[in-house]
Amino acid sequence: MKNWKIKKGHDFRIRNRHPWVFSNELLDSPKGILPGEPIELTDMQGHFLARGYGNPHSLISFRAMSFSTKENFDMTAEFLTERLLQAWRFRHRSGFRKSFRLCYSEADQMAGLIMDRYVFSKEGQAYQVFSFQLLTSGMDRAFKKDDTWQIIVQSLVQRAQEEGLSSMDWEHTLILQKNDVSIRKLEGLEVEEPQILRAVDNCDLHDIKIEVQNVLQPEQDVFFDVNLVEGQKTGFFLDQTFNMRLVLEHLQRQKPYLQGRKIKLLDLCCYMGQWSSQIVNNLKSWGVDCEVHLVDVSELALEKAKNNLAAYGVPVFTYKKDVLSLAEVSELASQKFDIVISDPPAFVKNKKDLPQGLAAYAKLNTQAFKMCASGAVIVSCTCSGSVQLDDFKEALRKAVLKSGANARCLAYGGQGWDHPHLMSFTEGYYLKMVLHQID
Amino acid sequence: MKNWKIKKGHDFRIRNRHPWVFSNELLDSPKGILPGEPIELTDMQGHFLARGYGNPHSLISFRAMSFSTKENFDMTAEFLTERLLQAWRFRHRSGFRKSFRLCYSEADQMAGLIMDRYVFSKEGQAYQVFSFQLLTSGMDRAFKKDDTWQIIVQSLVQRAQEEGLSSMDWEHTLILQKNDVSIRKLEGLEVEEPQILRAVDNCDLHDIKIEVQNVLQPEQDVFFDVNLVEGQKTGFFLDQTFNMRLVLEHLQRQKPYLQGRKIKLLDLCCYMGQWSSQIVNNLKSWGVDCEVHLVDVSELALEKAKNNLAAYGVPVFTYKKDVLSLAEVSELASQKFDIVISDPPAFVKNKKDLPQGLAAYAKLNTQAFKMCASGAVIVSCTCSGSVQLDDFKEALRKAVLKSGANARCLAYGGQGWDHPHLMSFTEGYYLKMVLHQID
Repeated sequence: MKNWKIKKGHDFRIRNRHPWVFSNELLDSPKGILPGEPIELTDMQGHFLARGYGNPHSLISFRAMSFSTKENFDMTAEFLTERLLQAWRFRHRSGFRKSFRLCYSEADQMAGLIMDRYVFSKEGQAYQVFSFQLLTSGMDRAFKKDDTWQIIVQSLVQRAQEEGLSSMDWEHTLILQKNDVSIRKLEGLEVEEPQILRAVDNCDLHDIKIEVQNVLQPEQDVFFDVNLVEGQKTGFFLDQTFNMRLVLEHLQRQKPYLQGRKIKLLDLCCYMGQWSSQIVNNLKSWGVDCEVHLVDVSELALEKAKNNLAAYGVPVFTYKKDVLSLAEVSELASQKFDIVISDPPAFVKNKKDLPQGLAAYAKLNTQAFKMCASGAVIVSCTCSGSVQLDDFKEALRKAVLKSGANARCLAYGGQGWDHPHLMSFTEGYYLKMVLHQID
Repeated sequence: MKNWKIKKGHDFRIRNRHPWVFSNELLDSPKGILPGEPIELTDMQGHFLARGYGNPHSLISFRAMSFSTKENFDMTAEFLTERLLQAWRFRHRSGFRKSFRLCYSEADQMAGLIMDRYVFSKEGQAYQVFSFQLLTSGMDRAFKKDDTWQIIVQSLVQRAQEEGLSSMDWEHTLILQKNDVSIRKLEGLEVEEPQILRAVDNCDLHDIKIEVQNVLQPEQDVFFDVNLVEGQKTGFFLDQTFNMRLVLEHLQRQKPYLQGRKIKLLDLCCYMGQWSSQIVNNLKSWGVDCEVHLVDVSELALEKAKNNLAAYGVPVFTYKKDVLSLAEVSELASQKFDIVISDPPAFVKNKKDLPQGLAAYAKLNTQAFKMCASGAVIVSCTCSGSVQLDDFKEALRKAVLKSGANARCLAYGGQGWDHPHLMSFTEGYYLKMVLHQID
């Protein structure tokens, strides 16, 4: 394995298990290697620091995959499959059985790889889709060279079956590659069109009904009509499971207060209706009547969300609107809701947008708090990685103040447990949720 | 109502609903009023800011109780009872039925009052205890003058019955005053001996078995033998319910991995065994075998905890030891555990202790992570109000690193929902919990 040395005084981060090393921190030039070439990193004295892979065309020249000399690291199909299996075992242990994030990059010691698994049924037959994103040139090459992705996924499927993690076989496995993200440019990679790498039985990934576990009753499913190929990220968002469970458990405890009334739910930035579907599914199972008001800028999202909610037979109202202009929609803004979900897309993409972004969170939540009925539960989310929880709390403090609401904070939430993060890699912690209840 | 003006330029905090005003921020001298005298605070132009009460002998001269001109604020038994009822309704809505924090000072717009409610049974008869702490001279006087505490609690009990919040009557109500805290000195108050203000039916508050809801199965109880009079704070700690539920739900999802093995639980700073009792109670109900290892410096705590666990018939091992010297206990330090709870008393009492305190958290958790078996769940808590979550995460980052553990972070927790807090009063948010799972 090739050896790189880190410059004196630049080893603090990697010694603390942060998995990135920048090109200017290396004694050696990262040029001249192939992307994804295995590298052993040492200090100036030759002491082992980490093993990982190099990226000649990125600011981040080295990404650690292992901090142990005992581990038999290599960027082979065999090693990568083993890592994916470890990641799957971890999810299985936490109860994830249907659609979930199987691999979350650095948190699973697989820097550069996001892989979600989706489950759906067609004509009584169950299928699984592995939808992945290759975010670094190293991981891109490791997966693509000689169609290694096929060996990896096929052996993953087989090993998962053998270990009892899944009952699905290779024949009913589809593979989707979603390299349509601009972050790839930082690695000198092309932004590619989504590519169905493996299709079976004429299943069309543009139009499937995926199965997501009910967050409260995990043996039951909630269904979503989705277009995985054209959907964002790997095709869908699975990261709110923990927060949804937190909110639904709270609602469940309030059942005596909910029964016999018509509960009004406001879902701001509803996307495919994930929040609403989980909530309505459970409210209905408790015999609680409700109606849903969906807001999104995307006509397609509203249509899909409405469709996903149709199964529950509740009144659904849709508003095609930027949530930051909510106050303009007088027939909506004048109403009061019992449950308010504010889960917008990231308002802060870069650190320079921070002040504007925080102002936008404050504005959106001011309006959201204003629309809370007495006793309402309100959920405020940010999925901006560069927004720290304390900054977000400050935005919410302003929102509570401006709205005039009497709101007690109950809890903080975050990414579902299939999106874990590491203390040594705080960049992986992006989703924050704050739960309030109104007096 | 007496009017005080705030100096120009000092109104930022109070306008943002932070409920404290310091003596040097007032135009008027706080001397010469009675503690607890109702005050209306205005700006220099006479515009309303808040109503609350004054404390002539404290740095914090004014504490807000209301930010609304519409509210009929006064420091009377009637007003204070109404506030307590609001607080109780809030808890009832969230499912709190047995022993819980009824009033949490500023978060319930009752600055200076902590009140916990404990439930116990004797000879088949249910009783409730209201145990309170008067932390400000204003609240102290409001409660003590003409035995107002009796009017307040008696009408609270009656109104709660009428509203269906509780079925217990005044005849089965006990009252305990726990003014044995040094913080009272800041208010010019005496540190007092605990005082049983109302005893009934020869129930001895030095030795009762309180009933706490099972965090997973709230209709079932977990019992604790406690000495409310000599116990810390109001006699017991109730603030971990949210975190316990989070951990137990996670364990419940892992049931297939737990069954058929003997699960080893390590409870560091076990106090009365709250964590262990909740965990063992549930493990047993799932048919999961376990043994418990309890560590505490207090012989009395260990004895009580062991006693509380005796009901479940599991092996209990006790270690009377400072948790920071855990490594010295070789027969313990060499073992591996499946569940590790690290819930020490506040290591940081003042801001100046912060570096030392954080080092202590890092040390304790390093040892705790070292004692984790493969697949273990580890819970790290701090109840130091001046330790920010980010500081605590940094201490844990060091602990994970030093221990050599591969640990994924799953979730953050905090105070139970009977201990809510306000965005405008971050001082009220003191308990932080971080949940990790080992590879």
